[in-house]
Amino acid sequence: MNEPMRSVLGSLRTSAQNLPESGIMRVFNYGRNCEGLIPLWAGEGDTPTPPVIYEAATRALADGETFYTYQLGIPPLREALAGYVSRLYGRSMDADEFFVTGGGMQAIQLAMQLTAGPGEEVVILAPAWPNFEGAVLGQGAVPKFVPLEFGANGWQLDLDRLFDACGPKTRILTINSPANPTGWTASEEELRAILTFARSRGLWIIADEIYGRYFYEGSGDRVAPSFQTMREPGDLILFVQTFSKCWAMTGWRMGWLQGPKELGQTVENLIQYNTSGVATFMQHAGVAALEQADEFAQSQINRAREGREIVCSALEPFGNVRFAWPDGAFYLFFGIEGQTDSMKTAFRLVDEANIGMAPGAAFSPSGEGHFRICYLRSATLLKEAMQRFTRWLS
Amino acid sequence: MNEPMRSVLGSLRTSAQNLPESGIMRVFNYGRNCEGLIPLWAGEGDTPTPPVIYEAATRALADGETFYTYQLGIPPLREALAGYVSRLYGRSMDADEFFVTGGGMQAIQLAMQLTAGPGEEVVILAPAWPNFEGAVLGQGAVPKFVPLEFGANGWQLDLDRLFDACGPKTRILTINSPANPTGWTASEEELRAILTFARSRGLWIIADEIYGRYFYEGSGDRVAPSFQTMREPGDLILFVQTFSKCWAMTGWRMGWLQGPKELGQTVENLIQYNTSGVATFMQHAGVAALEQADEFAQSQINRAREGREIVCSALEPFGNVRFAWPDGAFYLFFGIEGQTDSMKTAFRLVDEANIGMAPGAAFSPSGEGHFRICYLRSATLLKEAMQRFTRWLS
Repeated sequence: MNEPMRSVLGSLRTSAQNLPESGIMRVFNYGRNCEGLIPLWAGEGDTPTPPVIYEAATRALADGETFYTYQLGIPPLREALAGYVSRLYGRSMDADEFFVTGGGMQAIQLAMQLTAGPGEEVVILAPAWPNFEGAVLGQGAVPKFVPLEFGANGWQLDLDRLFDACGPKTRILTINSPANPTGWTASEEELRAILTFARSRGLWIIADEIYGRYFYEGSGDRVAPSFQTMREPGDLILFVQTFSKCWAMTGWRMGWLQGPKELGQTVENLIQYNTSGVATFMQHAGVAALEQADEFAQSQINRAREGREIVCSALEPFGNVRFAWPDGAFYLFFGIEGQTDSMKTAFRLVDEANIGMAPGAAFSPSGEGHFRICYLRSATLLKEAMQRFTRWLS
Repeated sequence: MNEPMRSVLGSLRTSAQNLPESGIMRVFNYGRNCEGLIPLWAGEGDTPTPPVIYEAATRALADGETFYTYQLGIPPLREALAGYVSRLYGRSMDADEFFVTGGGMQAIQLAMQLTAGPGEEVVILAPAWPNFEGAVLGQGAVPKFVPLEFGANGWQLDLDRLFDACGPKTRILTINSPANPTGWTASEEELRAILTFARSRGLWIIADEIYGRYFYEGSGDRVAPSFQTMREPGDLILFVQTFSKCWAMTGWRMGWLQGPKELGQTVENLIQYNTSGVATFMQHAGVAALEQADEFAQSQINRAREGREIVCSALEPFGNVRFAWPDGAFYLFFGIEGQTDSMKTAFRLVDEANIGMAPGAAFSPSGEGHFRICYLRSATLLKEAMQRFTRWLS
């Protein structure tokens, strides 16, 4: 490292210097330009945003909707959000509880800025999507991982282990169910127990239920168990949500935070000083997604269900691959016998099998030895990917 | 306040609770729906984004550019930024120095996350755009205002006062020139002196030169004096920039941070955990702005020059109004004799004159007694606004 480099980097805040590089991005950047590679590493499908959604943005652009707007979101979108979530959970909710954000990631970032002070502890169930940890560390707060356990019935949460992990410095429980990357999905009883515990300790719950509609119990369109159906006024719950997963809008960076309406002014201030809101023309596309694109959302969910079948069936015969069929989300998170350095193996899979997988080590230490595949993909592509992978395994 | 409200708000972090509400937004929300009101409070023009720019986004949407992308910006946009800024300042720059952000506001937010630790001091020249203070407070850092002085030649900076304000806890000088709201524009000599001082103390400079092309010395298209022309490798300077002001893209929330290329990985991590980047289809519009819309940008600058003429000429005859013709930016910041509560007066101006002005108190304590008008507006509208206002003044 030359002299100016040392001095520039040395002049940064420690919290910025210490942020971990995303392990998923490392593999992504490694294999980004490999010809013919089948990428299964990112948490997104292979379908672009449909016209019914993006044309609402196109129209708004042509209508000159390009000025500053409401920091918390335009009223029609907040109304549409309240309507959509109310329908989904069969419970009436108010537009004042919904705050539009620059993606689910910003919803998490704002949730941490609202609650997680320097030195305070944030409990995260692991293996976990790494951006939770990143958002916590950015606040100078301390992530505390509680590992799920893999057994005969797949990934399981030991509630006592979760509760024992909460000490005097703990302020927040982040509960991601259905979970990325494991697919673990909390039962209604587990959620109730967690909520009761959080109430008794005055803890915040940050509920990441963004995969709630990707739930495979039964064959219908059931939604996964949720804090939405059991919460009461005064509960300290922040729901982080996104347009990305149901409407093929990952690249839009649009989501929402849902919480007690009393937070409105504080969230408005935070958004003002973080990014100053989301483009109006994009928000119109959000309204279209919520109100006119349910058929598309359902087709995505069906696609994931089919993808899960293809991937799990293909790997089931292999004794050196360890997994359980996931209850929710759209990932398979599996171990390969003897592969203990998942980053190295992920690079090898790019070079030797021309497929891109996310290394388990990216999802907290307890993810090491595992790999994440996103199966929200076309059947043809997934079958080809599984052929390549099983050939490599053999 | 009822019981649940107290308990929810009381459970928030102090730093979130203590963020100031934007005084501009307060007036904005007060008068937002007043019929026939002429709004001059916001820092934006009245021209929507032109087709040459937004159609690039429309095309990208139709092409399915709706997936996750590079956290630091797509390579064509980073190249276009390097080309544009190099042309503007006659000095060759590299794409690796440019990081695409969710607006100028996020560029400032990231600059603070990079440099301003809890308890450290950030110097801000005042009166100042309030969002600097908001971003500083959000980090738990301490804003330290150094007031400009208003005299016979308009707003002036006392360099000794600036340097004396820097103590052992000072880490950052934010230099906004041309300035919002005062129009104060640093001379090249002043910038050189500030840079020399910053070098000697190892301080970061956060340079907000977003109004650099709105500069009224001479009659041509000169750009305001800038740190760009005098910086050397290893200098600790972060430029925060935006597409908003030159290309009528305020509502897009797209900007950029420019700094030493060694920061790339750290900035990538920060963006990953804040918002995970900017929509690809918007970035294509950014490329179009930089490479195909210079005629439009020039028309905006001419419009501001004409607006300045209209507003300043209209108010000059009034002995109870105090101002100097601003050197740069697109605001007039003026005092009204006897009006010491600018928030109250701004509300009165909404009610009694049907015009919207930003209250000086929103721009740090030294802004009290003043008002900000944005004159990047059509001549017809500005003339009507000045008629209403001078009638009210009389």
